[in-house]
Amino acid sequence: MNTKDGLFVKMVMNSWQATQKSINKKIASLSEEELNSPILPGKNTPAWIIGHLATVNDNIATLLELGPKLKPEYEKALIHPDGTVKAPAAAEMIKYWHDSNAYINEKMASLSIEDWFSRHTAVSAEDFAKEPHRNKLNVLMSRTNHLSHHLGQLVLIKNKVEA
Amino acid sequence: MNTKDGLFVKMVMNSWQATQKSINKKIASLSEEELNSPILPGKNTPAWIIGHLATVNDNIATLLELGPKLKPEYEKALIHPDGTVKAPAAAEMIKYWHDSNAYINEKMASLSIEDWFSRHTAVSAEDFAKEPHRNKLNVLMSRTNHLSHHLGQLVLIKNKVEA
Repeated sequence: MNTKDGLFVKMVMNSWQATQKSINKKIASLSEEELNSPILPGKNTPAWIIGHLATVNDNIATLLELGPKLKPEYEKALIHPDGTVKAPAAAEMIKYWHDSNAYINEKMASLSIEDWFSRHTAVSAEDFAKEPHRNKLNVLMSRTNHLSHHLGQLVLIKNKVEA
Repeated sequence: MNTKDGLFVKMVMNSWQATQKSINKKIASLSEEELNSPILPGKNTPAWIIGHLATVNDNIATLLELGPKLKPEYEKALIHPDGTVKAPAAAEMIKYWHDSNAYINEKMASLSIEDWFSRHTAVSAEDFAKEPHRNKLNVLMSRTNHLSHHLGQLVLIKNKVEA
């Protein structure tokens, strides 16, 4: 194994953790009212976005074989809303975000470098042989971009405590 | 050199190119009026964001030693606005975005895997010896997150052509 393998895991993990930290900072600055107000008319509320990110964390748990989802029942409210499940209250979604971060971050810390370069659970062994970039580390890189996407939306909120 | 080194480069490049493509698609869907309207009152317009991303592309050219900036004069309008330089018109910023993408993408294609793992120009040789993750590939990974951050903002626009 080349030393660069470990380097790349470090690069992706640093980026993931830094983005989580920025989101935590932003969440902590939002009032109850801001959390529950759509960012733009007809768009999602910050609380929904936070719950959505937590549900995506649960998907990461599955894709990376870290363990069972914490709240599988929220997928229908927070990833593919079909009207059958109501999104929980803001406080519950924030708790879910923090719990799911702690859960997957702890599990990820014990993955070996080889684990990171193994296939994620949504790609078959056959496809992975042809496309070895579809590994677990690639999932984390992609989900970091997903965090950044939503962080870009959260920072648009005209923040009373920052004003 | 380990075969995984080339794999990392491919993973980061795929992510970069896919995010650029999503931004291009969004830009193409925006009307002149939408381009010039702040996303939220007091916030940036899509046109400004696009110019900002192009200026960041120019910084990438420097950090990755790809060549000179295309428009060094825009930094004071689009990265650190100090009131001395006015942002150009929307059409000019869109052209700048496309030109700068073509420019840096072409130059990046000729970087070797070893080039990608060498230090970027904002880190000293001394610091790099201690922190080898501060390489050129890390810059591209970080700038992909930056694209995602702003793409998250652009997609909030209630789009007439999509409605």
